[in-house]
Amino acid sequence: MPTDKIDAGVLHKLKNCSSATATTLLVKRGLRNTAIRRVLPLRRDLPRMVGPAFTLRYIPAREDLDRYGTGGDPHNAQRQAIELVPEGAVFVLDCRGDDSIAGIGAILTRRLQARGVAGVVMDGGVRDSNSVATFDIPVYCSGPSAPPNYAGHHAVEFGTPISCGGVAVYPGDIMLGDAEAVVAIPRHLVAEIAEEGEAMERREAFLMCEIVAGRSIVGVYPPDSDTLERYRVAITSGSAT
Amino acid sequence: MPTDKIDAGVLHKLKNCSSATATTLLVKRGLRNTAIRRVLPLRRDLPRMVGPAFTLRYIPAREDLDRYGTGGDPHNAQRQAIELVPEGAVFVLDCRGDDSIAGIGAILTRRLQARGVAGVVMDGGVRDSNSVATFDIPVYCSGPSAPPNYAGHHAVEFGTPISCGGVAVYPGDIMLGDAEAVVAIPRHLVAEIAEEGEAMERREAFLMCEIVAGRSIVGVYPPDSDTLERYRVAITSGSAT
Amino acid sequence: MPTDKIDAGVLHKLKNCSSATATTLLVKRGLRNTAIRRVLPLRRDLPRMVGPAFTLRYIPAREDLDRYGTGGDPHNAQRQAIELVPEGAVFVLDCRGDDSIAGIGAILTRRLQARGVAGVVMDGGVRDSNSVATFDIPVYCSGPSAPPNYAGHHAVEFGTPISCGGVAVYPGDIMLGDAEAVVAIPRHLVAEIAEEGEAMERREAFLMCEIVAGRSIVGVYPPDSDTLERYRVAITSGSAT
Amino acid sequence: MPTDKIDAGVLHKLKNCSSATATTLLVKRGLRNTAIRRVLPLRRDLPRMVGPAFTLRYIPAREDLDRYGTGGDPHNAQRQAIELVPEGAVFVLDCRGDDSIAGIGAILTRRLQARGVAGVVMDGGVRDSNSVATFDIPVYCSGPSAPPNYAGHHAVEFGTPISCGGVAVYPGDIMLGDAEAVVAIPRHLVAEIAEEGEAMERREAFLMCEIVAGRSIVGVYPPDSDTLERYRVAITSGSAT
Amino acid sequence: MPTDKIDAGVLHKLKNCSSATATTLLVKRGLRNTAIRRVLPLRRDLPRMVGPAFTLRYIPAREDLDRYGTGGDPHNAQRQAIELVPEGAVFVLDCRGDDSIAGIGAILTRRLQARGVAGVVMDGGVRDSNSVATFDIPVYCSGPSAPPNYAGHHAVEFGTPISCGGVAVYPGDIMLGDAEAVVAIPRHLVAEIAEEGEAMERREAFLMCEIVAGRSIVGVYPPDSDTLERYRVAITSGSAT
Amino acid sequence: MPTDKIDAGVLHKLKNCSSATATTLLVKRGLRNTAIRRVLPLRRDLPRMVGPAFTLRYIPAREDLDRYGTGGDPHNAQRQAIELVPEGAVFVLDCRGDDSIAGIGAILTRRLQARGVAGVVMDGGVRDSNSVATFDIPVYCSGPSAPPNYAGHHAVEFGTPISCGGVAVYPGDIMLGDAEAVVAIPRHLVAEIAEEGEAMERREAFLMCEIVAGRSIVGVYPPDSDTLERYRVAITSGSAT
Repeated sequence: MPTDKIDAGVLHKLKNCSSATATTLLVKRGLRNTAIRRVLPLRRDLPRMVGPAFTLRYIPAREDLDRYGTGGDPHNAQRQAIELVPEGAVFVLDCRGDDSIAGIGAILTRRLQARGVAGVVMDGGVRDSNSVATFDIPVYCSGPSAPPNYAGHHAVEFGTPISCGGVAVYPGDIMLGDAEAVVAIPRHLVAEIAEEGEAMERREAFLMCEIVAGRSIVGVYPPDSDTLERYRVAITSGSAT
Repeated sequence: MPTDKIDAGVLHKLKNCSSATATTLLVKRGLRNTAIRRVLPLRRDLPRMVGPAFTLRYIPAREDLDRYGTGGDPHNAQRQAIELVPEGAVFVLDCRGDDSIAGIGAILTRRLQARGVAGVVMDGGVRDSNSVATFDIPVYCSGPSAPPNYAGHHAVEFGTPISCGGVAVYPGDIMLGDAEAVVAIPRHLVAEIAEEGEAMERREAFLMCEIVAGRSIVGVYPPDSDTLERYRVAITSGSAT
Repeated sequence: MPTDKIDAGVLHKLKNCSSATATTLLVKRGLRNTAIRRVLPLRRDLPRMVGPAFTLRYIPAREDLDRYGTGGDPHNAQRQAIELVPEGAVFVLDCRGDDSIAGIGAILTRRLQARGVAGVVMDGGVRDSNSVATFDIPVYCSGPSAPPNYAGHHAVEFGTPISCGGVAVYPGDIMLGDAEAVVAIPRHLVAEIAEEGEAMERREAFLMCEIVAGRSIVGVYPPDSDTLERYRVAITSGSAT
Repeated sequence: MPTDKIDAGVLHKLKNCSSATATTLLVKRGLRNTAIRRVLPLRRDLPRMVGPAFTLRYIPAREDLDRYGTGGDPHNAQRQAIELVPEGAVFVLDCRGDDSIAGIGAILTRRLQARGVAGVVMDGGVRDSNSVATFDIPVYCSGPSAPPNYAGHHAVEFGTPISCGGVAVYPGDIMLGDAEAVVAIPRHLVAEIAEEGEAMERREAFLMCEIVAGRSIVGVYPPDSDTLERYRVAITSGSAT
Repeated sequence: MPTDKIDAGVLHKLKNCSSATATTLLVKRGLRNTAIRRVLPLRRDLPRMVGPAFTLRYIPAREDLDRYGTGGDPHNAQRQAIELVPEGAVFVLDCRGDDSIAGIGAILTRRLQARGVAGVVMDGGVRDSNSVATFDIPVYCSGPSAPPNYAGHHAVEFGTPISCGGVAVYPGDIMLGDAEAVVAIPRHLVAEIAEEGEAMERREAFLMCEIVAGRSIVGVYPPDSDTLERYRVAITSGSAT
Repeated sequence: MPTDKIDAGVLHKLKNCSSATATTLLVKRGLRNTAIRRVLPLRRDLPRMVGPAFTLRYIPAREDLDRYGTGGDPHNAQRQAIELVPEGAVFVLDCRGDDSIAGIGAILTRRLQARGVAGVVMDGGVRDSNSVATFDIPVYCSGPSAPPNYAGHHAVEFGTPISCGGVAVYPGDIMLGDAEAVVAIPRHLVAEIAEEGEAMERREAFLMCEIVAGRSIVGVYPPDSDTLERYRVAITSGSAT
């Protein structure tokens, strides 16, 4: 995981960007596959999640290695990762898209919250989901799932690049999550996405006002020079959102 | 798209039919595949959606044709369709069941609402879903999805028969949507489905009362002649729902 | 279906176990595949569902056998099953995971509720889902689906072992359902699962308190001898949940 | 399983029909779902398979019931079925479409061949496939699969209606298999399908000759009255295939 | 469909390119999604297929429109297309990836061969596959499938852009097929792909010789300047494949 | 990867075991998930493949990192792995089950053969498959696929535990492949599986002879004490296969 800090101002601006806007700006740069697939937030009323990815990789369980009691092994990569993930990071798990078992449950998620983790993302199930849904930490998953992780997973390693929901996630990529989706923003692009994203959000809010006011999309979305001029006037005069 | 108007009385009666009732009456006529698959309403508290289908067809994107800025092309079939769809129509998109990209987002959906469209149906994702879920227009989709349509789709044409959720949708078919499902009713059957459907809803409400009152389903569901006689008396005396 | 009664005390204890805890104890006994897959409760605010399985098996419909009016046949296995399922049982349907048609709808579900059935589980859709969601009976399914069962299913028999959501369900297995999942507990294991499960719930509640208080998972989850001693003291002194 | 014999002449005629022709005639009668899905013959050089279905039903394995040694249980439904299936029947297994485990292997298949079984059909894998492919008995399956059936299946019962490859198979249905597919022909339709099918094969052979000779499909496929007259002349003069 | 002819020399060069090479050169130009998915050739011993796409689009069948006898309708888009597809073109069908029904069968395929069509590509099944496999025309499909096209498809139109195997196919795109795959090459790129592809095939044949001779891939694949110099010498001296 | 050598006698015995037998003995030990799913050999006429796993892990490609020319990077984990895999090892790739792109092609496979690798296994496509199918090295894959690996994959690391075809593969596990399947045998079990497997193959060959001779499976498969006594006599007298 990269050790250089992301500038606080960048993270702040990014919190003003939706996951939809981030994907637009990534597609603009040729990156078409950055939104984690088949994953939804357990609750939709939390603020946007922003933080660098800290990864954990699962492979399929093998019955002789993965069984009740496995969690007590001090070398268990899952347990180690949970105590090592830095404050502010997003804990991202590679569950190979398996929604029939849980990647994590309530006690471990609560510990992650206590350690100051910014959120949890996994392309698999979460157990004790009703309890987890009451925690003030965003959790993105494929849905509720009762069976414990060792029923189907074996934690191999943390801190390496993984696949999550069909998307490459590198340690340190900035994970941006809202009520709609989670996007993995490559670290080297985060500053410019934040800058351009915040501006785009502001411009689209203006365009939405025009549409609400009854204008056609022709000339407005995308905006032609007349519309852009109206927008320039609006933001200068302070009337834009 | 057919230009003959559907009779207002027919549409009114259809609004009293659930999607479940409509499928029953279509199966009765030998049509077993009319409910759009893997599609749910973004919000469940809106009145029933009824209107003739106006179709838009997507094919997979090709990176040289479909990229940031594509929306500005005046020949873009998606943008043209949005400004041409008639008031009262249901905008139906063929997204090939791809839930990893959005078929449409907030600004375009808001424009459709402004143009008086009765609803939107797509077998793919919707972006800006939190915003869209606040609009007073029913939107049926496979769920939230952040990436813009050109990340995976190319709009080819509108007004031709399409596949949506594994179902054939012909322009002018009447789309009936409620909190459960969307059904494509062939245009030539809509009058009789409306007529028969409204009657069936009334009768089934009576049968439900009988079940709530503790009767067995034997003789009640489906109703035998005794039950039908009780029903006849009930509606004559005005006690049925 | 076994005729011996499950001890009421066992069922009572089981109601204090989550589906997650039950799967843990089943995996501990070598049973890794007991949680019904791709099935969720229609509503999440009901008490836990516990009861012996009463099974109904569907195969694919054939158009000459399964059509409008089929329900009126007195030999229809679905209708017979609904009037024969014992009070307190859980009605479990094998829908082959097909989410494009309904396994059951509002009138039949309401009748099951009237007959004192403890719940309904099916690896397929439920129709009239908005209505069903208002009934005080837990219904687990793959989601809403408008088409009637005969559009895709044929009821063959009841009371035989079936597959539901990729899991073997034997008549008399104890189905345990909560807001997260449904688990099929083999009948011969139910007493020990109930006993051990209730104790595990209590211990995990204590461990969660420790985590909330800021302890690391090391030594706590799973608990070492110090933690277990603290737990022993806590339950002796009455402070545990 | 029905005990009335199918007339030998009917079976003989059916051997002159392809699976494609049989589906055409079944669709003509409103039956659109009779070809077993995702199943291919292990070898393509055997004569057509024709015989009444004898069914075996599997559900998912449970680790305490299904393990090494299970085959020795005299009540094992799979083993019983193999010694009870009548000569000339087609052994059809419901494997729930699971291609990751085998429905049957070489020794049991060889025993079925010794008992005079007409063929084997399963919507799952076959093990020892290289060996099985040398036997003179048609075997239709989803492909090779090494793990034994008890690794994933439990044999519940035989002689009841099942699902195989998404199709309803009733005991006694006539299974028609060739190098392309297997079709389940409802028993009450088999005589007319055989009669009409043989005639259709002959007519289509004539039409193919016309196409090979360079004619357009217009007027030939489907044939108009001129073409039918040429065909009448051809068969009268004995020149048709 | 574009009316300008592709230069014969271009087509000739393209016949020396494998589908693998074509995808490499398309990815180099940013086009990552050009190989039709889940489609294989019915026979693997035919020369490479090269020709411009002529498209046919299917949507799901509706029982009242699509039934036995439909083929006789003179307005049937499938039948019209078969008599209109130009000599040398590749007939490409959008079957929505449905492998449970056939897109086309023996008589129509034989007619396409008689009309000089270069090949057939469909993301669905082919019926009468044993017969079709004897024709000297390349046919790419998802495998054998007995049911006739009207059991699941309705032909809507021809000559418009379609989806086939998850790939956009525009009329006039050059379809290149070999024993491995089929690739849709955008028409405006075909000349440069042919030119560069033929050269790449020659160079890779040389590199393969080096690997066979025992060299490491380091410096050879991809080639460094030394290797390229050896290659230059080899082709100058005429020893390359 | 473990550095201790597997005894040559063990490997020799294992070459006498089929993949089917190996899975039986692994299920007997509680390991139900050891056969790589959805993977077949490119050619079926090669001797059994046996060797320790050498693993390579792919994650999804990202367009800015994975593009034409990527192979030339000396730090490319795929290229490094190919020059580091030990003689006699089986090269196993984690392709996440993606059959739409290739894990490897002809030149790299030919290099692996030159380096004395025992075989290649990947849960994804192979490109240049026609060429690869002529090499004397067993290659297991999901089928032919034209696009190069960087069109969808990024090689992250080698020598770590991976998922392949839904199965956990640890470096040094013994991969056993035949014309039917590939099985990952945990290294600590290989000696006993080889010993017991060879004996089982011999016994099952005897049992097959009994079945061919017309005996019932009752008492023969599985064998009772009489059959085992006959077997004992047969192997003593040297008549068993």
